[in-house]
Amino acid sequence: MPTEVIHCAWLLTMAEGAEPIPDAYVKIVDDKIVEVGPWQDGVAADADVVTDARTKLVLPGLVNTHTHAAMVLFRSLGDDYPLYTWLQEKIWPLEANLTAEDVYYGTRLAINEMLCSGTTTFADQYFFMDEVAEAVAESGIRAVLSRGLLGSDAEVETKLEEAIEQAKKWKGKADGRITAMLGPHAPYTLSPAALRQIVTAARHYQLSLHIHVAETRDELEEIGKNYGKRPVAYLAEHGLFSRPVLMAHGVWLDEGEISYLAKQKVAVAHNPSSNMKLASGIAPVAQLLKAGITVSLGTDGAASNNRLDMFTEMRTASLLQKVANNDPTVLPAETALKMATIDGARALGLGDQIGSLEPGKKADLIMIDLEQNHLTPCFNPASLLVYSARGSDVAAVMVNGKWLVKEGRILAGDEEKVRTAAAECAKRLAQLQQGK
Amino acid sequence: MPTEVIHCAWLLTMAEGAEPIPDAYVKIVDDKIVEVGPWQDGVAADADVVTDARTKLVLPGLVNTHTHAAMVLFRSLGDDYPLYTWLQEKIWPLEANLTAEDVYYGTRLAINEMLCSGTTTFADQYFFMDEVAEAVAESGIRAVLSRGLLGSDAEVETKLEEAIEQAKKWKGKADGRITAMLGPHAPYTLSPAALRQIVTAARHYQLSLHIHVAETRDELEEIGKNYGKRPVAYLAEHGLFSRPVLMAHGVWLDEGEISYLAKQKVAVAHNPSSNMKLASGIAPVAQLLKAGITVSLGTDGAASNNRLDMFTEMRTASLLQKVANNDPTVLPAETALKMATIDGARALGLGDQIGSLEPGKKADLIMIDLEQNHLTPCFNPASLLVYSARGSDVAAVMVNGKWLVKEGRILAGDEEKVRTAAAECAKRLAQLQQGK
Repeated sequence: MPTEVIHCAWLLTMAEGAEPIPDAYVKIVDDKIVEVGPWQDGVAADADVVTDARTKLVLPGLVNTHTHAAMVLFRSLGDDYPLYTWLQEKIWPLEANLTAEDVYYGTRLAINEMLCSGTTTFADQYFFMDEVAEAVAESGIRAVLSRGLLGSDAEVETKLEEAIEQAKKWKGKADGRITAMLGPHAPYTLSPAALRQIVTAARHYQLSLHIHVAETRDELEEIGKNYGKRPVAYLAEHGLFSRPVLMAHGVWLDEGEISYLAKQKVAVAHNPSSNMKLASGIAPVAQLLKAGITVSLGTDGAASNNRLDMFTEMRTASLLQKVANNDPTVLPAETALKMATIDGARALGLGDQIGSLEPGKKADLIMIDLEQNHLTPCFNPASLLVYSARGSDVAAVMVNGKWLVKEGRILAGDEEKVRTAAAECAKRLAQLQQGK
Repeated sequence: MPTEVIHCAWLLTMAEGAEPIPDAYVKIVDDKIVEVGPWQDGVAADADVVTDARTKLVLPGLVNTHTHAAMVLFRSLGDDYPLYTWLQEKIWPLEANLTAEDVYYGTRLAINEMLCSGTTTFADQYFFMDEVAEAVAESGIRAVLSRGLLGSDAEVETKLEEAIEQAKKWKGKADGRITAMLGPHAPYTLSPAALRQIVTAARHYQLSLHIHVAETRDELEEIGKNYGKRPVAYLAEHGLFSRPVLMAHGVWLDEGEISYLAKQKVAVAHNPSSNMKLASGIAPVAQLLKAGITVSLGTDGAASNNRLDMFTEMRTASLLQKVANNDPTVLPAETALKMATIDGARALGLGDQIGSLEPGKKADLIMIDLEQNHLTPCFNPASLLVYSARGSDVAAVMVNGKWLVKEGRILAGDEEKVRTAAAECAKRLAQLQQGK
């Protein structure tokens, strides 16, 4: 059993109630953390490797709880358009031509971007999920995958079978780094019958559900018009909340819905950049947190962000809630960090395995290089991480006990190859669309 | 006369109506741009130096039109507090102990941070401005300096004399990189008499004015209570707008004020991160732009941001206006870039010298390294710069025809020394405050 000890300038374990520890260490055996604490003589006595990180800050790897990774292929291809023009004239025609290979290279590029900016786990909802799983397996990152389920009832039936096959096929593979959820797309892209079918399958296979809810005012109106209800009530009617739910967005929620979601222990994946860029609205995050709801963070796809950088989402979430609530004390740095780590893990049902650096948990951690102009001085490590740090400050990344990034670069050394292949896929898709 | 030609993948000149140029060049003689255009054989025939930037994007250096540079010393020292606690218990006691040396090292650190993230000109309002000017002169950056004028009438009189002496002393020094404005702090920190005295001096010495206006609702209430007017009317009454004005913030402006400011050709420095973090409010930027007002961008001081990164401000300005106006087409990428370059230059009265890459202008330019995961693919360079790029993507920076940053590092090689010295100053200030 190889044993590694990391000696760091600061350690943020994100364990309940823990304060940042200066001059600290983390001890790792295989894929697990076995000890953390203030540095002392002798803690590295039995280590095979001692990593000198005395100019660095160590914290848990960040958890991106909502994205469509392969959409990096559409980065900078359709910005500043009205929502329907964007979807109907840009995104959907592009997606109609996507091949399995496109999704594979797009996901590889997205994973490299996420790893280099400190994300060690992501929740994806997209299609060609076998290729997404391959990309996850090869890259070493951790992921929770949901095949997007939407369309006609017949289409949903086929996609649901595919999703269940994929969940079985990948279970326990890639050192256990891949788990599955079912991915009913949204209340407005599925019939009530299809929704019930998905819920039934989720119960049968004991799977959780990853769904977009209350993202835009238009959705509220459409569901109101079609079913005479608000989205949460409509979904509740069809049994959605009988399984654990990861609700992406939750922008348009009222007080009654918030207390209902709290009771149902629904987790909300907040996507501040995407909600701002698409002008969807400002999610009531302060109210969700007050109600005791687990709120995590997500980047959404790169077509509506246009980065997959969780440092951006931590900062944006905090700043947006302050101004929206006229109160600079709302969503302090410590809360934003919690949302991006341990609460992200809980939202994905992985709270007992990742999200904090505690003995027994998986060794998913990142190192921040503190010796930088914009991170000087350091009076409060949490403040520095949320308000001053950037994804590019991530010096090293470990997932499942294995170093994937060092000196800011992917160790596998395939960055340039993946970038070139993904750029080729993107170019072909753009040309196909223009040819229409 | 040394002649340099840069051969780049993309050129954004930011000249009126110009489109991004692929495979382009910029020709520089001494401190000036002499030619720009698509690359052709022979354009580098008489060059002493040809810089190969065929994997890079070149654009004008960014203009940070409102900051208090030395406040980087307080980074991460007082976040997430209510505004008055922050000012009265954190910032003001810290500032009371600032020495000339602190301001010098704080400003040097801030300049290194700004240069490395692509800022080539900044407008500063602070004190110990001789030391700020020294830091500017030594570092090679360009700056517009205003000694902050506030306090009792007697204090303002002394500070005003100091400001005028400094303006004379530094005029034409440092290769002409330093210019001065007068800096009446804000309507609520000066008496009407002091304000009039400053305006009289500004007329006499033909100086422009850099002032905080309508930043918070509290300011609106205080000016209303004391003078029975809104801030703009109060300032107009005392002749402020008889000189060119750079108005920082402008968060709380009504329709009448907006059209008045447009007529007076006032420029507004918008500070989106600071306004969000301090919960000051959302400036009516879309309305200001519609009225034809020159709106530029600023980081404000690092105590309320906590970065001096204009890429963050471009992105934040755009996203915030979209969500505030329920419209994803508001403040598109091209507009954000204009605000950060040519309109920043105009706001500082330097529109004929910097802000765009056109023959006859000063050679202030930056290079972005496009070969990165999060900048792939590149369909629209402006989108990529505003929504996907980070300050850390700046590979090289030229100010006044001189390279100051290459491979992301300050060429003068003093980064570590400045960081250490500034951290020492910050530590002493924090200890002094705790000792109280």
